[in-house]
Amino acid sequence: MIKTLKKGRPGAKAKKPALSVPGFRASGIACGIKKGREKDLALILSDVPARVAGVLTKNRVKAAPVLFDTKMLASGTSSGVRGVIINSGNANACTGKKGLEDTRKTARLAEVAAGTKRGRMLVSSTGVIGVPLPLKKIEKGLPALVKALSPSGWHRAAEAIMTTDAYPKTVRGSARVGGRTVTVVGIAKGAGMICPDMATMLAFFATDANLTSAALSRALKTAVDQSFNNISVDNETSTNDTVLIFANGLAGGKSTGLRSRGFSAFSRLLNGLSLSLAHMIVDDGEGATKFLEFHVKGAASESDARRAARALAGSLLVKTAFFGGDPNWGRIVAALGSSGVKMSQEKVGISFNKVPVVRGGLDTGKQNEAARAIKARRVSITVDLKMGKSSYKLWTTDLSNDYVKINSAYRT
Amino acid sequence: MIKTLKKGRPGAKAKKPALSVPGFRASGIACGIKKGREKDLALILSDVPARVAGVLTKNRVKAAPVLFDTKMLASGTSSGVRGVIINSGNANACTGKKGLEDTRKTARLAEVAAGTKRGRMLVSSTGVIGVPLPLKKIEKGLPALVKALSPSGWHRAAEAIMTTDAYPKTVRGSARVGGRTVTVVGIAKGAGMICPDMATMLAFFATDANLTSAALSRALKTAVDQSFNNISVDNETSTNDTVLIFANGLAGGKSTGLRSRGFSAFSRLLNGLSLSLAHMIVDDGEGATKFLEFHVKGAASESDARRAARALAGSLLVKTAFFGGDPNWGRIVAALGSSGVKMSQEKVGISFNKVPVVRGGLDTGKQNEAARAIKARRVSITVDLKMGKSSYKLWTTDLSNDYVKINSAYRT
Repeated sequence: MIKTLKKGRPGAKAKKPALSVPGFRASGIACGIKKGREKDLALILSDVPARVAGVLTKNRVKAAPVLFDTKMLASGTSSGVRGVIINSGNANACTGKKGLEDTRKTARLAEVAAGTKRGRMLVSSTGVIGVPLPLKKIEKGLPALVKALSPSGWHRAAEAIMTTDAYPKTVRGSARVGGRTVTVVGIAKGAGMICPDMATMLAFFATDANLTSAALSRALKTAVDQSFNNISVDNETSTNDTVLIFANGLAGGKSTGLRSRGFSAFSRLLNGLSLSLAHMIVDDGEGATKFLEFHVKGAASESDARRAARALAGSLLVKTAFFGGDPNWGRIVAALGSSGVKMSQEKVGISFNKVPVVRGGLDTGKQNEAARAIKARRVSITVDLKMGKSSYKLWTTDLSNDYVKINSAYRT
Repeated sequence: MIKTLKKGRPGAKAKKPALSVPGFRASGIACGIKKGREKDLALILSDVPARVAGVLTKNRVKAAPVLFDTKMLASGTSSGVRGVIINSGNANACTGKKGLEDTRKTARLAEVAAGTKRGRMLVSSTGVIGVPLPLKKIEKGLPALVKALSPSGWHRAAEAIMTTDAYPKTVRGSARVGGRTVTVVGIAKGAGMICPDMATMLAFFATDANLTSAALSRALKTAVDQSFNNISVDNETSTNDTVLIFANGLAGGKSTGLRSRGFSAFSRLLNGLSLSLAHMIVDDGEGATKFLEFHVKGAASESDARRAARALAGSLLVKTAFFGGDPNWGRIVAALGSSGVKMSQEKVGISFNKVPVVRGGLDTGKQNEAARAIKARRVSITVDLKMGKSSYKLWTTDLSNDYVKINSAYRT
């Protein structure tokens, strides 16, 4: 019933591109975990054993599938997996030993249904915390899920992992790596959170590139660090955040390692695609009316730059000011001051979409011009601390009435 | 125009108690900084030189009056001051050298008007950031302000320091200290923030107790640490936060030092009064519909207990859940997990107003009972980490639509 609050965004990439990557199939169906006939079960399957790398939540409270995947990624099987089964509508978090057992059973059931060997399937879940996974529904849905597998099934898979997202998020890109053209397809769901769902960010990539495990892991970690780790909707880290990449090597060619020439080309491709998905997640943030970029420069150190940017993106006062269309730079200066970074208030410069509002810590008298500039849906806030040479960029949303409405709605 | 959003709270202490403390007078008037005829200028004056101690904002961006008071508190004059002049409606922050000059002039004008020696008056400001202080209005208002001084003027002074507060906050208490009955009166304004005002917490105490400077400072620091430093409305630290206490010694008796028997009695009194004012500030938090107490116990260390409590009080998801009346403990567990404290998810216990909702990390099946329990205006959330013996209590509000409305309203 809350869905009505979410409107399709202008510029939402809701068209269905012809997505595919050699040797992978995907599907998404409704198995009844969510109410109505909304899709809630997805499968990604490689035709042949694939390498996998993953970045999982740093929350000390980890959902059962996160614990399961972590173990699998650490074990030798990570070079011979076949895919991942994902459900939405239930996070299988804070569900104790039974939760872990349910995840194991889910993987095993998916392996049997897809006809793979034992120990080849990862699991991911997103949704309400603390409620037992409805395993029977997943079991009943599996035959249809496997039957629906298709090289062009990515869009349906992206739909099936959505919770409060307004639109499915997909990307596709190609590059020349090791003398071959390789393709990467990615899908993601956002940190949109609707009661009773916990904010969770999930992203899955598949590629036919032939990379070593080390190269795949490094490329993923680098891509996540400069994309998903630099966005924020409400400063929350979920128990289920997961990013996985599968590489089945079907593009052929020599295996690309960390020192291969092709590595940087692949890494660039994955960086770009990750950033696109990350920006879609922000754009589709709960109740968001604005896409905010905080660019802190002139910081004394990189950690200061990051800390300052995060303080701004985490400030309720800053976020509500942008929702209100108010170029209230005082809130930005106050948030900077309480962030603990090295600064001197009489040096600070601030601009909103290139309109300078503060110079040398003082108002420039351009409030009206700034108010007009921040009417845009995308607002870039540049803060120059003039203390050094480090900089950091971070993307977030404003804070609207709808965010509160969405997140305070009663569970039914 | 936003005032209409703020309703008088049930239980609001809006009655006017007969407040007074020997040898102090106070007043509050309207001098035109705020629109309409709202009071915006207050004066607190001791009939004789008094000792003063203060706790000022840790924000690295400090308003001009904070810089001015800091210097004065550090200098020898701190044992011979006469009072403080306070304006609301303008924070005199981020106003550069002119701002500091304006604060100096304000102090001097107040000294002349009140007929004190030079260097005897502190200054405090709260309101919009980055706008020059309307010194002329203060100057014009001063004769009326001094004329209005009265031993029973505390309530009017409390009104004059309000910004978005729904009601003035005053306390009074007595205790036997060093063989004499001493009185403490306190007034405060809350971390309510309304555009264009920046959230600022101000509190002023006056006592006739005869304490040494060291005893006065220690008592204030202790009181602030266990009251104002343990509350939060929106996790913001303003550029103007100030707590001052004046002690004129008129109660007589031997001077009470840190090791005197009377010190702990005075400290207890001040602790209690500070806590009362702090709770009023939370109760009157912007858009607040609930008063939340987070009690973290069983933490591995005191810093862990504090960090966990602050993570909970700072979580938008936790705060919106309580606004929605949803006993959504999953959000609490997730916020604990991302706070970085030592914990083991299968040990955690959580209760809402004494209804256990989580035991050993698992749902107790008491969701309905918990939902009824949190319908109360005051909700106590107890989290037992079962990792050690440290505990921490912190008070905050829920996050409501009104908070966003208030803080996103356009400046006019």
